[in-house]
Parts: sequence; C-alpha cells; structure tokens
Amino acid sequence: MLDVVLVGCGGTIPLKNRWLTACYLRCNGRAMLIDCGEGTQIAIKEAGVSLYAINAICLTHYHADHISGLPGLLLSLGNEGRTDPLAIYGPVGLQRIVNGLRVIAPELPFSLELHEYLQPQESFTVGDLSVTAFAVKHTLPCYGYRMQLPRAGKFDPIRAKHNQIPMAIWSTLQKGNAVTYEGVAYSPQQVLGAPRKGLSVVYCTDTRPLERIATMAQGADLFICEGMYGDASKQDKALETQHMTFSEAAQLAKQAEVRSMWLTHYSPSLPEPNEYLADAQAIFAETQCGFDGQRTTLRFED
Amino acid sequence: MLDVVLVGCGGTIPLKNRWLTACYLRCNGRAMLIDCGEGTQIAIKEAGVSLYAINAICLTHYHADHISGLPGLLLSLGNEGRTDPLAIYGPVGLQRIVNGLRVIAPELPFSLELHEYLQPQESFTVGDLSVTAFAVKHTLPCYGYRMQLPRAGKFDPIRAKHNQIPMAIWSTLQKGNAVTYEGVAYSPQQVLGAPRKGLSVVYCTDTRPLERIATMAQGADLFICEGMYGDASKQDKALETQHMTFSEAAQLAKQAEVRSMWLTHYSPSLPEPNEYLADAQAIFAETQCGFDGQRTTLRFED
Repeated sequence: MLDVVLVGCGGTIPLKNRWLTACYLRCNGRAMLIDCGEGTQIAIKEAGVSLYAINAICLTHYHADHISGLPGLLLSLGNEGRTDPLAIYGPVGLQRIVNGLRVIAPELPFSLELHEYLQPQESFTVGDLSVTAFAVKHTLPCYGYRMQLPRAGKFDPIRAKHNQIPMAIWSTLQKGNAVTYEGVAYSPQQVLGAPRKGLSVVYCTDTRPLERIATMAQGADLFICEGMYGDASKQDKALETQHMTFSEAAQLAKQAEVRSMWLTHYSPSLPEPNEYLADAQAIFAETQCGFDGQRTTLRFED
Repeated sequence: MLDVVLVGCGGTIPLKNRWLTACYLRCNGRAMLIDCGEGTQIAIKEAGVSLYAINAICLTHYHADHISGLPGLLLSLGNEGRTDPLAIYGPVGLQRIVNGLRVIAPELPFSLELHEYLQPQESFTVGDLSVTAFAVKHTLPCYGYRMQLPRAGKFDPIRAKHNQIPMAIWSTLQKGNAVTYEGVAYSPQQVLGAPRKGLSVVYCTDTRPLERIATMAQGADLFICEGMYGDASKQDKALETQHMTFSEAAQLAKQAEVRSMWLTHYSPSLPEPNEYLADAQAIFAETQCGFDGQRTTLRFED
C-alpha cells in the first residue's frame, strides 16, 4: 500500500491558513517528499507523519515557494539524530541552490547525495517506489513526477510444477526473492504469473498543460496537479505565469484517464478553491480540491 | 507611542503551535523586525501587523532559526509591490549569508542596504527609533538590541520669552523643528526644557547572561530576553549551548531594574513555559512568559 499526504496546497507565498504545496509519499516505512517550501517541516508535523522516514527529497524547481524550507528541514532532521544519507533530486542547478541555502546549515550529521537531472526524463528508486522525473513547462526548468509501486504476478503453482521448482523454495520465490537450492539458481519469475497492475501517483506543479503530462499520468490512481487559478477567465494570466486553470488541469486528467485528481498550488488570490470545483468536475468528475493534510492510502486491487 | 509585537517565541525549530522567535516594533508608521526565522512572515500576518511597514530587519545572528525565513519574506515584500530600499543589519558575515540565501530570491523590485557590524557596539536609527546593537555571548557572533524612542523636553514659555523668541515661531519650535525667521536662525532647544524620559525596549537572544546586557537594559520599559530553559537544573545545558535559564534571565532583569520582562526563545523541549514562571517571578516579579502574538503599546509618561 502507498500513503499519500498532500502536506500543503498553496502557491507563491505561505498564508496563515495554507501551507505551501508539498507532497509526502510513504511505502513500507520509507518516505519521499516532493518540494519543501517555507513551513513544510511544520506542515509535516501537523499532518502527523514522520520527518525521520524521509529517504529522498524530490524538487520540482527552484522557485522559493518550493524550496525555501529546505535548510530548516535539513537541520531538523539533524536535530532528530539522523545519520543516514539523504538523497535530493532536482533540475540542473541543484548543487548551486543547495550550497547557497546551506550557508545557514553548514554542518549536518548526515551526508547529502545530490542528483541533478541531466535529461528531460530520468528514473530512479526510493525504497520500493519507482520514480520517473519528467520535464514540464514553467518559467524555469521544472519537473513532474510519476511514482509507481510495482506489483509482481500472482503465485502460479501450475507454472511452478511445470518448471519443476522444488516445493521447499516456493515460499521464498513467491516473496520475490531469487534463491540457489542444491546448486541450482531459481528466479521468482519461474513461479509467478505476469506482473499485475501496481499503484501510481503523478504529481505536477508548476507547469502549463502538456501532452507529455497526459502521457506520463496515463491511468494513474491519483493525479495531483496544479490549479493556480480557479476562474477559467484567468486563462491569460495562466499563460503569462506558466500555470494552469482548474479547467486545464481537468482536461489533462480526462485525457490521461486517471482514477482521481487532487488540485493544488492555489494562487493566494484564490481563498476558496471549492467555488470553482464544479467547473473542473464538469470536465473530469473525479476532481477534488486538495487541502492541507489531505491524505489517502492506495491499495492493490483484489 | 511604540508598539511591540512578539511575533514568535520558539527556539531551534518551528513547532506546529509555536513560531520561531522574532520581534516587530512599530513607531509612527515605520516598523523594524528583529530576526526572521522560517515562518516569520506567516506569524507576522497572524499577528495582524503590516509586512509593508518594515523599514529595517535587524538580525541577532546567523543560526537558521533566526534567519531562514529571510528569502521568503523578501519575496513577499516584492509581491506586495515594495520598491523602497530595505535596510538589513547584522553581525560580520551578513553579505555572505544574504547572498547565499538569495540564490532563491535573486530578483527583487527593491534594493537591499546591508550594514555589517564591525564594532562590538553600533548605533543607527530606524524611523524615529534610535537603535543600539551590542555584542552578546553565544556560540557564534551575536548581538542584542536596545531601541529607544527619545522624548524632547516640555515647551517652556518662560524660557522662550527669556530667549526673546518671536511668538510666531513658538509652535514650530515646540514641534522640534528648527526655523529661520526674519533672517535669524532658531532651534527647538531655545524653547524646550531638558529632554524627558523616552521609551525603551531591549531584546536579547541568543546569549549567556552578561554584565553588558544588564548595562544596556538599564531602566528599560520592556526587556525581551531569551529563556531557553525553564528548569534551573538545566544550568549545565545552558552553559553548553550558550543560552540562559529563566532564573538567569530574571537575575539580569532585576539587576537592570527594567520595568517588565518577557521571556522568549523556548527550547522545543519546553512545551509549557508557564510551569517555570514562578521561579523567575521569585527573582523578578514583573516577568511574563512571552507567547506568539503577544503585544503591548508603550506610551510616554505624563
């Protein structure tokens, strides 16, 4: 299962009743954080999830509302006694940005592993999650993320027998572990059916709508997408600032045939996003206006 | 009159119910801010005071809990349309620290005037306030602040007559303005008695207690002082981290004969500062445990 917490849902500046947009995903005790604006560490505490479990921070881009909380969060991890290395992923410029911000966090009791994207699409893993970062279109280099929790095929005793696999190692192979038994190497694929549908979450902010986003979000269980402007008449503003309206986000969700969408990254000029929800739902019914601390647990079907 | 708002009262890390320590002082429409940790801009909004009125930011030192909110606050000032220059004061290293943090706030619609302290004591003005920064004792260079609102002497008609000041300019001189009348220059001192007691606020965090602090705080109307540890048995910890216990702060307040003291900059391990208030009040009765958003308006005596 995969826990998803929308830690904050605001864009541009933190408000007294709205944290900046960030997302926390946790799977089998390991977590990743997408973006870290001012106050994200407090928002994480308010959401009641663990800072300590964070294994990787994935940054979309380097506008302050997405990264200004990084030095404080790193220091808090240090205060909590972290010694394990922390991976940070982000667009070109990561070294320069992190080194600049570390002027106030020069000493940490753990090391940082910085991974700067050199390609428009890059893949890596965080715990059991397969993560793909993909370039989107904003006023500076910016990436969206697809997180995938793969699911192995079902154990197939007929296949196991057909492949003459000793029963003593069925259980080990069923759990996905390769094993050597009486001098012979066996792989889980010898006892498992075809991989089943896993779980997927796609996260996109800040960006204009793109075909690439619809492709990357195809069939996702949850699509978390920016909706900077609720009012469709703010289309020109969205173009100018390289953001989206609710309607544009809903068109993407529809095109990508996702299961559900949470809107996020609202403009400070949009105090009541739900006033415009109907416009989005008219295009894609399974739209919700995300809110600080919103959460869900995605589970494998069956 | 002088408005004082304790924007936050926490030390080390921002908590979900406690902002980091910062102080906002406003006099005749101009404000200064002391320190700017993560979330200070939100705390200022919660306190209902104006970001826009800030003319100067005075930093005590460069631990992250005192400065990590600076880039976000600068950007928010820019978003509010500020074009007036902003003064920032702080210990040696100010250029390096501000330039580092500005990696995420490279473009601002106003200029920054950085003033780095080269002496253990330096004085300047912010609007009508006379400010003195003075070195204190922490694990890195750190300054306390004394803010003074001076008060001119009372209008003295006997003195004015004695000095043969034309009555036509009495009112102008009474308001503190020099004037040239019929070719002769006159100064306010010619019609005013001796300067009267003004208003003063002294702010000290992070530091060990020092004679210099007692001297600088002498007779202050309000002394805002760190109290990292409530429990007097944490004396060793206070020595190790170069902070104070409540009792030490109260001793300073007593020695400085201040009118009142607010404690601030509580350790995250001190969720209920009021549990230790009696210990401080036993030493200095006019002690209060400061809290987020605490405020007072100091007025001239009459």
